[in-house]
Amino acid sequence: MKRLFVIATLLGAAPALADEGMWTYNNFPAAKVKEKYGFEPTQEWLDKVRLSSVRLAGGCSASFVSPDGLVMTNHHCARGCIEQLSTAKKDYIANGFYAKTQAEEKQCPAMEINQLESITDVTDTLGKATQGMSGKQYADTLKAKMSELEQACSAGDAKVRCDVVTLYQGGKYNLYKYRRFQDVRLVMAPEHAIAFFGGDPDNFEFPRYDLDVSFVRVYQDGKPANTKDTYFKWSEHGAKEGELTFVSGNPGRTSRGLSISELEFQRDVVLPKTLIYLSEMRGMVTEFQRRGPEQKRISNNMLFGVENAIKAMKGRHEALVDKNFFAQKVAAEQELRKKVDANPEMKKKYGAAWDEIAKAEEQLAHVRKELGYMEQGQGLSATTFQIARTLVRAAEELPKENGQRLREFNQAGLPALKAQLFSPAPIYPELEIARLTFGLTKMREELGADHPFVKKVLGKDSPATLATRVVKGTKLIDVKARQALFDGGKAAVDASKDPMIALAKLVDPDARAVRKNVEENIEAVVRKNSELIAKAKFEVYGTNQYPDATFSPRVSYGSVKGYMEDGKQVAPITQMAGTFERHTGEDPFALPKSWLKAQNILDGKTGMNFVTTNDIIGGNSGSPMINKDGEIVGLVFDGNIQSLGGEYGFDESVNRTVAVHSDAIIEALQKIYGATRVLEELRPGSTKVPPVKANPAG
Amino acid sequence: MKRLFVIATLLGAAPALADEGMWTYNNFPAAKVKEKYGFEPTQEWLDKVRLSSVRLAGGCSASFVSPDGLVMTNHHCARGCIEQLSTAKKDYIANGFYAKTQAEEKQCPAMEINQLESITDVTDTLGKATQGMSGKQYADTLKAKMSELEQACSAGDAKVRCDVVTLYQGGKYNLYKYRRFQDVRLVMAPEHAIAFFGGDPDNFEFPRYDLDVSFVRVYQDGKPANTKDTYFKWSEHGAKEGELTFVSGNPGRTSRGLSISELEFQRDVVLPKTLIYLSEMRGMVTEFQRRGPEQKRISNNMLFGVENAIKAMKGRHEALVDKNFFAQKVAAEQELRKKVDANPEMKKKYGAAWDEIAKAEEQLAHVRKELGYMEQGQGLSATTFQIARTLVRAAEELPKENGQRLREFNQAGLPALKAQLFSPAPIYPELEIARLTFGLTKMREELGADHPFVKKVLGKDSPATLATRVVKGTKLIDVKARQALFDGGKAAVDASKDPMIALAKLVDPDARAVRKNVEENIEAVVRKNSELIAKAKFEVYGTNQYPDATFSPRVSYGSVKGYMEDGKQVAPITQMAGTFERHTGEDPFALPKSWLKAQNILDGKTGMNFVTTNDIIGGNSGSPMINKDGEIVGLVFDGNIQSLGGEYGFDESVNRTVAVHSDAIIEALQKIYGATRVLEELRPGSTKVPPVKANPAG
Repeated sequence: MKRLFVIATLLGAAPALADEGMWTYNNFPAAKVKEKYGFEPTQEWLDKVRLSSVRLAGGCSASFVSPDGLVMTNHHCARGCIEQLSTAKKDYIANGFYAKTQAEEKQCPAMEINQLESITDVTDTLGKATQGMSGKQYADTLKAKMSELEQACSAGDAKVRCDVVTLYQGGKYNLYKYRRFQDVRLVMAPEHAIAFFGGDPDNFEFPRYDLDVSFVRVYQDGKPANTKDTYFKWSEHGAKEGELTFVSGNPGRTSRGLSISELEFQRDVVLPKTLIYLSEMRGMVTEFQRRGPEQKRISNNMLFGVENAIKAMKGRHEALVDKNFFAQKVAAEQELRKKVDANPEMKKKYGAAWDEIAKAEEQLAHVRKELGYMEQGQGLSATTFQIARTLVRAAEELPKENGQRLREFNQAGLPALKAQLFSPAPIYPELEIARLTFGLTKMREELGADHPFVKKVLGKDSPATLATRVVKGTKLIDVKARQALFDGGKAAVDASKDPMIALAKLVDPDARAVRKNVEENIEAVVRKNSELIAKAKFEVYGTNQYPDATFSPRVSYGSVKGYMEDGKQVAPITQMAGTFERHTGEDPFALPKSWLKAQNILDGKTGMNFVTTNDIIGGNSGSPMINKDGEIVGLVFDGNIQSLGGEYGFDESVNRTVAVHSDAIIEALQKIYGATRVLEELRPGSTKVPPVKANPAG
Repeated sequence: MKRLFVIATLLGAAPALADEGMWTYNNFPAAKVKEKYGFEPTQEWLDKVRLSSVRLAGGCSASFVSPDGLVMTNHHCARGCIEQLSTAKKDYIANGFYAKTQAEEKQCPAMEINQLESITDVTDTLGKATQGMSGKQYADTLKAKMSELEQACSAGDAKVRCDVVTLYQGGKYNLYKYRRFQDVRLVMAPEHAIAFFGGDPDNFEFPRYDLDVSFVRVYQDGKPANTKDTYFKWSEHGAKEGELTFVSGNPGRTSRGLSISELEFQRDVVLPKTLIYLSEMRGMVTEFQRRGPEQKRISNNMLFGVENAIKAMKGRHEALVDKNFFAQKVAAEQELRKKVDANPEMKKKYGAAWDEIAKAEEQLAHVRKELGYMEQGQGLSATTFQIARTLVRAAEELPKENGQRLREFNQAGLPALKAQLFSPAPIYPELEIARLTFGLTKMREELGADHPFVKKVLGKDSPATLATRVVKGTKLIDVKARQALFDGGKAAVDASKDPMIALAKLVDPDARAVRKNVEENIEAVVRKNSELIAKAKFEVYGTNQYPDATFSPRVSYGSVKGYMEDGKQVAPITQMAGTFERHTGEDPFALPKSWLKAQNILDGKTGMNFVTTNDIIGGNSGSPMINKDGEIVGLVFDGNIQSLGGEYGFDESVNRTVAVHSDAIIEALQKIYGATRVLEELRPGSTKVPPVKANPAG
């Protein structure tokens, strides 16, 4: 495919061209949308959309779609929950799930949903607090002040979550206040075979034929939450070609503001090295699945995550090795630097920022492996180890002043941390051993058998021996054991003989030292200087820009539109009939029985999936796709392969969001799943005519 | 580690600085060696060394070490043979092998040894034949003429192999005439645990403690070959620090003459993509090994090959993403281009060559995936498929005129091709299925489920279904079935119902088409223009240069010398005692019982492994390390991690060859293995004193 990136904002023109941008709710280019599409969203419209959209704390997006707290998201976003509720006997991943009555709705062990209630600009407050500082002092003060703001905002209310969001690489800081819902119950999920039809081969591809949808419900005080003023109605007609569309969701991360030295580090080191690591893990897990059906079941979620990450990173790597694309990035940086250097005052303030970042990146290259293997879980890669580390660190961190703690132990983040720590989601020792063996093997390979940390961890053990011993010996699979250690604090942790706790204690001083060095001598430098570059951009190009994605709520606009690929026009909407044409009977192209049965009563012309020019990125999965009337016309579940370069720049000619068509959801709920209760919530009155029964002979 | 590459030849100075260079036997810088080391090898000396050195056709180096055809090489070079001779009951990989009598020496199923008898310069002959040609005509004519020369040289003698070797990217062509030995028998091999002590974690590292040695013997007419005039004697004292050393072997490939556009393609595309592919395969095979001990045994060889390739490629990738290194390469090319452009005549002849290559590389980027998956075995990745393809193509190619055939079916190469095709080396269906499933899965992923080739191959099958069906259905595991199809020619192949043959026939037209396009429109262009660049280099810098490695015999010189790593001095020689210190009892740091038993009778101060400044690369494994008297002082088995960048440039400050010390071999043969018969051949008379028995209580 041919890339032709248009990086308007970086190349100097003030407004973003085309449909580019993942905009914040308090800086949306309404006038620009009106100019192009004839519709100008009001702030009221935007506020309603913001409140009807939600974020899954685990890394997805979603929306309220009924007055009674019904939430729509992707199947792959609720996968963790569906898998955790499954057992060897009841496999909801394979067979789907539908709660015929409210009483049958099952609580997800570890799902949290956040709704953004307000945004406050705190740039000045933080700027004043850190004025004239740099290095460790700057990082510490910023962290302490952010914690203070977050804590004041949530005011000890466990149902509130407050985050200081760093926008424009630190050019702006906004305080986001969320309402949190932690009682989330599974309502409906189709079979994995149709939710992820085409599997990894079709992932990030289009044309596409997935029903990647699931429904959950948020509860408050044991009852469905009241969301009558904050939900999206369902569109009667569904998405049409050329129609204006909005996506409201939580794009996880883009890196469009990175400097060239950072992009080179991504291109030459981070992306290839991570791809190599993940690819080996993928090979391991794929073959692990052949141990048996139960092993397949317990590792499916992990495999999906790994494969998804690999494909996303491959797309990013391809964008960065595209010579034209990279040359544009270089040209944009050079232009900005020239403008900065031409103005003595700006030069004094901002001129050195790029070189400072380059120097920090060089340092990072030297400690990258130690950071990854000692602190970031590439080596000690097991859930039980992560739990052990959290317990060991909680015992040390929680007695400290809030501002002095490691960031993840901030008061504001504690409810989420505890939800994760005490999640009853099952942990499978066999998979834990395989993962930890893998991580320890890589650690020894990458750091070298003679590295003091490797010697400390492994001693005379092989990776497999150590992994087997600590996983088999640990009690942390039991939530009660975790609770006791957490409640017991430092005394309990110190006294613990649990081998996983012992391992976490053993490595903690080294891991902390590596992290401290990186935070104080590298990240602080990059942060400080990125902030300077962002400010230079504001001074040179004005404020009509969108910030890089930060897994916080954003809106993008666009329209339903095909594109050219390998010289051929790709139509924007696929039809249900195409799904059956793609069926081979072999995984991942095997339709579930429910679909084969219903084939002859479905309307083959029903829209199945479609693409739009909305600018999205990973994290947007599950986002509602709405029309100008704020009605659901689709459900975002993917981007095409060309969208992956969107990490670094947006190319409207080929970058596409991929969504499930709203009509396909209705058709399937009605004719395949007979999910009357859900249908009635989405489109009240629509089920008064009894649903047609699937033809058992079909 | 810090790299500081000195690329003297490319930067303009005519002679290579330092100990750089893998020199041909007919252009050795003897005067330069004399200047630096005080010893000037004569042509007679060089000829003796050339004839005493041999090449393993499978991709390694070796040497004659007795008058009776005894050959020394690495354990990892004879691994294929050792594995093939092993069974589930007799595992010579795990337990080692020693033929106490000549009668017990076991024939290797698929080992061929080549001895270089003569070199003839054919540059002018080929130059005249292709004068004024380009594109397809140039490629075809060159190929036909090369075949003709090779055929005339071997004159139908199956014991002779002739190759036209392309040197200096086509700046010179030499005809190499080899004597071939196809009756090769295993004499002695230690246990894998000591041959590859430290395993993958220690691979390409130093300090090191391996006994990576094995002995085989070449036979002629059922008797040990007479090599009394062409073998290396054993040094009495072994390698010493500072000593002048020569390595005579077959470096497989270097890419020091590549242009910048080719290096960028390697850095950004080939290396990362291949590393990702191989890493996933590695994860798969590692986990496949956990299916059971027999699965581990049958896949060890494959895993070793994959891991070795991964590590080598990682080293190369790291060299290319090193900014200083790459900048030097860019500067060297710019300097040469400037000199060419400054001379109107040279500019006319050579000026466009770099841009032509760059254009060809761009085209290659577009067909890379199809080439890899349709023609080069990334997709149809099973030994039985390779056999089927060879049979299908042989039926088509062999009736053609020699010059018209696909290059691998040239008359000159037929004996080697047949040896491979009819090798009785066991093929394991379970591993075949796993490999083919893997390859087909990657093919579908990389080309896409909608690619016509993917649809043609898979139809409605999943990769696993297809792989299982064709592997279980094929008779090609049986050598007789292959022979019948080969002898039966096109009629037999056409009539065959073997599913693997059917698959090979199905894909052949598409695979050939991709290959033809690449050969005629890309490779021919690169070859032609690389030749022009090589000629420009000769014109500008003179002929005192070495060519890139091409898996043909070369000599390098250097000395036993340590180096600095991470600020510490690494001593050049390790001692046997260190081997025991590194023993943890856990694979891959578990010594075999034979070593543990003998520990207290071994001289711990015996040299174990050592490093030298000789310039080598993969393919040099098994090369003899000799002193100026032409005596064995060591056995090359590796390079350090810094040597891997040697693919693109030589840095004498850290680039090191790693060898087994000759003393360690003697000590082990005598005190651990009691291999009297081998010892007596290496050092006649040395075993008159009966070897000390290992202490059973030790």
